[in-house]
Amino acid sequence: MLTEHDFASQKRRADVVARRLADRHTPLIRNAWYVAAKGDEITRRLMARTLLGVSVLLYRTEAGEPVALHNRCCHRSFPLSEGKLEGDTVVCRYHGLRYDAMGSCIAIPSQSQSPGKIGVRRYITMERGPLVWIWMGDPALSESTPLPHPEWLGHPDWDIEIGYVNVKGSYVHLHENLLDLSHLSFLHETTFGTPEYAAAPIETKIEGDDIQVWRHVPCVLPPLYAKPLGWEGMRAIRHSGSQFVSPGLHVNSGVFENLDLPKEQQSPPPMVKVAQIITPECQDRVHYYYAFCRNFVRGNPEVGAFMIKGFTAAFNEDVYALEKISDMHAQEDASQFYEIDIAADRAGLQMRRHLKTLADRETAEVSGVAPHFGKVPGAE
Amino acid sequence: MLTEHDFASQKRRADVVARRLADRHTPLIRNAWYVAAKGDEITRRLMARTLLGVSVLLYRTEAGEPVALHNRCCHRSFPLSEGKLEGDTVVCRYHGLRYDAMGSCIAIPSQSQSPGKIGVRRYITMERGPLVWIWMGDPALSESTPLPHPEWLGHPDWDIEIGYVNVKGSYVHLHENLLDLSHLSFLHETTFGTPEYAAAPIETKIEGDDIQVWRHVPCVLPPLYAKPLGWEGMRAIRHSGSQFVSPGLHVNSGVFENLDLPKEQQSPPPMVKVAQIITPECQDRVHYYYAFCRNFVRGNPEVGAFMIKGFTAAFNEDVYALEKISDMHAQEDASQFYEIDIAADRAGLQMRRHLKTLADRETAEVSGVAPHFGKVPGAE
Amino acid sequence: MLTEHDFASQKRRADVVARRLADRHTPLIRNAWYVAAKGDEITRRLMARTLLGVSVLLYRTEAGEPVALHNRCCHRSFPLSEGKLEGDTVVCRYHGLRYDAMGSCIAIPSQSQSPGKIGVRRYITMERGPLVWIWMGDPALSESTPLPHPEWLGHPDWDIEIGYVNVKGSYVHLHENLLDLSHLSFLHETTFGTPEYAAAPIETKIEGDDIQVWRHVPCVLPPLYAKPLGWEGMRAIRHSGSQFVSPGLHVNSGVFENLDLPKEQQSPPPMVKVAQIITPECQDRVHYYYAFCRNFVRGNPEVGAFMIKGFTAAFNEDVYALEKISDMHAQEDASQFYEIDIAADRAGLQMRRHLKTLADRETAEVSGVAPHFGKVPGAE
Repeated sequence: MLTEHDFASQKRRADVVARRLADRHTPLIRNAWYVAAKGDEITRRLMARTLLGVSVLLYRTEAGEPVALHNRCCHRSFPLSEGKLEGDTVVCRYHGLRYDAMGSCIAIPSQSQSPGKIGVRRYITMERGPLVWIWMGDPALSESTPLPHPEWLGHPDWDIEIGYVNVKGSYVHLHENLLDLSHLSFLHETTFGTPEYAAAPIETKIEGDDIQVWRHVPCVLPPLYAKPLGWEGMRAIRHSGSQFVSPGLHVNSGVFENLDLPKEQQSPPPMVKVAQIITPECQDRVHYYYAFCRNFVRGNPEVGAFMIKGFTAAFNEDVYALEKISDMHAQEDASQFYEIDIAADRAGLQMRRHLKTLADRETAEVSGVAPHFGKVPGAE
Repeated sequence: MLTEHDFASQKRRADVVARRLADRHTPLIRNAWYVAAKGDEITRRLMARTLLGVSVLLYRTEAGEPVALHNRCCHRSFPLSEGKLEGDTVVCRYHGLRYDAMGSCIAIPSQSQSPGKIGVRRYITMERGPLVWIWMGDPALSESTPLPHPEWLGHPDWDIEIGYVNVKGSYVHLHENLLDLSHLSFLHETTFGTPEYAAAPIETKIEGDDIQVWRHVPCVLPPLYAKPLGWEGMRAIRHSGSQFVSPGLHVNSGVFENLDLPKEQQSPPPMVKVAQIITPECQDRVHYYYAFCRNFVRGNPEVGAFMIKGFTAAFNEDVYALEKISDMHAQEDASQFYEIDIAADRAGLQMRRHLKTLADRETAEVSGVAPHFGKVPGAE
Repeated sequence: MLTEHDFASQKRRADVVARRLADRHTPLIRNAWYVAAKGDEITRRLMARTLLGVSVLLYRTEAGEPVALHNRCCHRSFPLSEGKLEGDTVVCRYHGLRYDAMGSCIAIPSQSQSPGKIGVRRYITMERGPLVWIWMGDPALSESTPLPHPEWLGHPDWDIEIGYVNVKGSYVHLHENLLDLSHLSFLHETTFGTPEYAAAPIETKIEGDDIQVWRHVPCVLPPLYAKPLGWEGMRAIRHSGSQFVSPGLHVNSGVFENLDLPKEQQSPPPMVKVAQIITPECQDRVHYYYAFCRNFVRGNPEVGAFMIKGFTAAFNEDVYALEKISDMHAQEDASQFYEIDIAADRAGLQMRRHLKTLADRETAEVSGVAPHFGKVPGAE
């Protein structure tokens, strides 16, 4: 049994480590690409969505281009999403101010003179495959920051299924969850974990921001994979990878090797890739899309439906875990909490140090919630 | 498209202007008359209502006088409204302390000796027509502050209908809403707005605290007025006025002139007057009564019911707008908001400067939430 | 009628007195025994309960010993109560960390090496009769602090019934409620109060921490007592005592003397004793158990059911009162409240001064929400 002296000295040490780690209180990273929505969610109907704590208006122009504007009339803060889309312009429902798709206010019905150069922020968007990405940080940095969209996501060689869930919890902890898959045997015991998973050796590859974890787990695959592959009861190796790509994206990979079938029948090997799309709604909620892609049993909607159903059940277990942890942090003694890291956390800690560095850099550069400075390149 | 430089310099300018304007954060004005309730709501049953952030007990004496006391037993803060009314006295349900209608504690059952000079605040009330007004500020100032009750409100020459809605939002923004009727064509598009309304010239009359806006709108009247008047499809001029009277009252007037009927048939011209009764419940909620009076088609309850129904539908649109704006201010980036004023805001800005001056003066005089100092004139 | 000058000077005086009294804002007392749960609530199923603002995991070992651990995995704060009980150990559902009944982490599935000396706090428990007591303060002080468990509670000479209610309010005000039974005639008018109760003389006995109030009320007993005793309509004296025992316990006693029956038929006199078990859940909620014991009409489950039903109805009136007071303190003007004490408060004020002294002493000794320092004696 630990003594109070043990707790006190552990807390001191943990607090020193934690100072360099992002956690639920770290300001959100604004200079990064995030997925605003699936492309098919953005239509000719005005849609409001909170992203990075900011209410954003999403719609498509008549030409089909996605538009993202600050969803707040510059006059009296009425949400533009409650108004009307007329052509490519938006009319505020309160006093009728009209905005073009660049966010400029182009008409004020109660006055004849021109509104002058007023308007709302327009956020840069990029549509790739089934996703629309958004840049809400310093516009000057958007061009030099590559879009993290993976080439296989939406590529015709891969079948794709996309799910969504709104998570009560911090995006930092969702990333951390995805980098330590030793939880599969416990949290996902009945969905896609197998008992061998917890103890399989962890191979951590860290090269700067490229943070990956791989495991090679000899096992009988869980039904989620075994059934579609027809490998039920067969011995296999599950090569399983987690890669932190950017604050808004994480990629999980699975490569499956059957030990009971000849190698020739497994070329190319069956693979799944899951884009774990992590967009902070605000400090403690996440828009969580998971785009699950596979290169096997393709063109089979029943298999697609079976697998996305299985993934959804499993990811809802993660959502449940993050929510329980979030509740724990609402306890009166939360300010006294400290956490002890284990060996499996190595990649997660590296990722949290990286996010903390990014957040500190943004805080140093600007003050205020919406540090948008400089010009939008190519616009105006 | 605006650059970040534009936003930053607009914010700087807007912040300077906003410093002199009342907004949702400005302390409520206490030295003013507000409507506590309709007279018929105050009965021989104890009733609790929060006014200016203070829980107030309302009831009538046996002689029919309205009484307003601080609704909190001075002993252990139990709400007196949960107790019993015995004669003109109130007995606390917790330990039985008995208060007279002046708020003095006159008996403590558990002790034989007199309670001494203890009690709760009694607020001055004035009953006029269908309304009971209350003064919750410095008692010394009540006599020198005229009651803003309009003489037509409850006058037999006018038919009256009264509606009520509890608004989630700031009373400042409700006043501002009522002073800029250019929103009629948009927010009230399907109720009592007409398209011409937005662009009709605005006549702003400001004389000290008397802030008025008038518009003269050539139009076909909306059905809310046209139907009772029998003017459907006819050309008319809608003379429409908004007047800020005091922090607790706003008056809207409508004078209707038919261009297709002879002048002689329109004397006196049909008029509506709406007392917009605005009592802050607390910093971000409002008790909103609207007393709608007309001088035409009188003594016709069906017309009365039709019109109050129409007004209620329209005013609920204002309530919806204020609530949406209130939600917007709950966003994580709200501290960064700034607002841009337009020409139609001239009267509203003057009103907000006036409220800010009143609030600043009260803050300078006293500190604390309930700045009640000096003696109640004529009492004791 | 009181003047503003009266209110201002009363407030000044009351604020001076209140500085030495515990109230809803006073930090909870940690160095005290509290009831964690009834013994039959703690089973082989993991159970979470918030006590003193801390989430506590409760279960029994295979040998039947109650265990209380901090309900938060030391790794990533997942609640252990969501995990599995295997033998006497608890396995976290998130990453499988295993804890023994002393709170030590004894296995981390994702690593082969020993977890080292990590773990969660184990709280000392003591099972007595139907209750399990817990010590959440400085372990070094637990041995020198006697368990306040009364010997009659669970003793075979007394029949016992236990009720529970979760109270929205401060435990300080629940204690105060129980020390001033002059509220019986008002709050409990229709349950167990009688009109004579309010005015009966109060006998206050204060010897250091032992704070007692007695009343001797000539009355016809309320049906709750009269019916089981067969004393309906008879004249009696109700000797009624309230004793503050410790921050977690209060005892109410009733001794009944029949004036219409011969003394010989009343030996021993019929008595009830109620252990008012008061465990703060957090700053403004209370786990409130009431264990009602009687020495008459024993072995009669119908009488037991009748009486516990009556007590529950009455205690729910206290819960209602505390909740109404709690709501009052949520008003915008709450920071201006002050309270006036009456003669019947003498014992309650002494109790509040005592709690304030205890709280100040704990605050002086340590800083932080969970001041657990020193060693657990006999453990390790």
